[in-house]
Amino acid sequence: MRIANLAGRLALLTGEGGDGSGAGGAVDVSVGGFDSDPAALFDQWDALLRWSAGVDPATAVPYKESDLRAPVPEPRQIFAVALNYRPHTAEAGYEEPAEPLVFTKFPSCLTGPYDTVDLPPGHVDWELEMVAVIGRDAYRVPEGDGWDPVVALTVGQDLSERIVQLAGRPAQFSLGKSFPGFGPVGPALVGVDEPADRDDLELTCELNGERVQHDRTSNMIFPVPRLVAHLSAICPLRPGDLIFTGTPAGVGNRRTPQRFIGPGDTLVSRIGGLGEMRHTFRSAP
Amino acid sequence: MRIANLAGRLALLTGEGGDGSGAGGAVDVSVGGFDSDPAALFDQWDALLRWSAGVDPATAVPYKESDLRAPVPEPRQIFAVALNYRPHTAEAGYEEPAEPLVFTKFPSCLTGPYDTVDLPPGHVDWELEMVAVIGRDAYRVPEGDGWDPVVALTVGQDLSERIVQLAGRPAQFSLGKSFPGFGPVGPALVGVDEPADRDDLELTCELNGERVQHDRTSNMIFPVPRLVAHLSAICPLRPGDLIFTGTPAGVGNRRTPQRFIGPGDTLVSRIGGLGEMRHTFRSAP
Repeated sequence: MRIANLAGRLALLTGEGGDGSGAGGAVDVSVGGFDSDPAALFDQWDALLRWSAGVDPATAVPYKESDLRAPVPEPRQIFAVALNYRPHTAEAGYEEPAEPLVFTKFPSCLTGPYDTVDLPPGHVDWELEMVAVIGRDAYRVPEGDGWDPVVALTVGQDLSERIVQLAGRPAQFSLGKSFPGFGPVGPALVGVDEPADRDDLELTCELNGERVQHDRTSNMIFPVPRLVAHLSAICPLRPGDLIFTGTPAGVGNRRTPQRFIGPGDTLVSRIGGLGEMRHTFRSAP
Repeated sequence: MRIANLAGRLALLTGEGGDGSGAGGAVDVSVGGFDSDPAALFDQWDALLRWSAGVDPATAVPYKESDLRAPVPEPRQIFAVALNYRPHTAEAGYEEPAEPLVFTKFPSCLTGPYDTVDLPPGHVDWELEMVAVIGRDAYRVPEGDGWDPVVALTVGQDLSERIVQLAGRPAQFSLGKSFPGFGPVGPALVGVDEPADRDDLELTCELNGERVQHDRTSNMIFPVPRLVAHLSAICPLRPGDLIFTGTPAGVGNRRTPQRFIGPGDTLVSRIGGLGEMRHTFRSAP
């Protein structure tokens, strides 16, 4: 199941839809008798799963990518994991962490998968990440059951302004990564049983057509079940909570010379089986 | 105006109520024709202010402190400021910050002003803080207008488990301060025009009757308007967002010998003009 937020209404994406190609179509969930309010998504999740299996793709209608919004517009909690791939940990100059390192992206930074992002002054960098979407209440989950509360996966960008992020002690990870538009997610929520292997998805990030990040989620230091166990040992998780699971190597501020996102650039964020997002950038007014 | 969440309903506290003495009474806002759902608080704020000025205290009824809940039960964003008083910055072994240092308390940690808090394993410490409550949408607010979106103040505790907080690099401020019950706020939201001088309130924290923290909010390195300017330069603020403004000196992990909260301890958190909270602690099951 691929569920999107299409101009503020829940819609099932069919066929090749949801991979960014725009080749598929959409079926408003009200066709199946569901509430199309995105806030009602998780209460209906299991019923939507059953319904979606029987939807005739011929009933889908074309949609515009630009109508796609963040599929979870109002998460209560956004957890973001730093330094979760060894090559990125090395390029960033940190030791390999013994436990997951967690910060937040403040929810006001969320945006959709095909939006234009305003660039604040500073050094804006890319960080492609898989995002795990919590769909069930969960507290103190053993690692062996760590996938249980995760109902969907999606693509995320942990856009980061490096000057704010790295100033101060303690460093300002949360604030430096929370400018408006710095938390794109989408194009759709993809049910965790959809990908052939949810533990091994291919991540590809391209800036102006040049591949800048490429890795597989199987290379995470702390895979999704470990992250769920670590977070839920402290914070009760709730439907709609998001976990940004960390970025592979290849960010701009650790290149020689450094490279950052400028006005007019196009960033494509793709995860095999989950779809792709495409963002353009302009100077903030 | 002192507005509390009394067993899930908005209530005006009258007389000496809201200072923790229980000496006053409460008037359910439905008496004035308002929606008593705490989620409806900020939409009605200005009208409640006008109504509250004319309420006859004789119409108030007694209430139990134990019925008081967190007055903002579902904030979208919680900003917390580290190292905002010079003596605390010194005791913590940090340099005086050039800009406000921000982390989050994940919203699942919120609790009421008279609750029992479960102690997780580790070193649980106190941090009395004034909390500024955003009541109006605000983005890019100049420091000179920094009080404008703040409609209320309340008392907060930034309870902290020091082992989780200080492990790892970057340090885990957000997670170590977000166990369930680690974000008590209350007893009521006090309108910013209520205190004689909203920029100079007395903070007193007592553990088992012994004063452990005592300072005045006028000694903040970055006062409320500066915090609002700093945060809103990056994150659009929304009604219900909370700002924990930092703690004075006197925390337990910087004492010789160190001192932490144990089962059976009682912690009183008082801010002059805003009221007090009282928490007891027990070992987590």
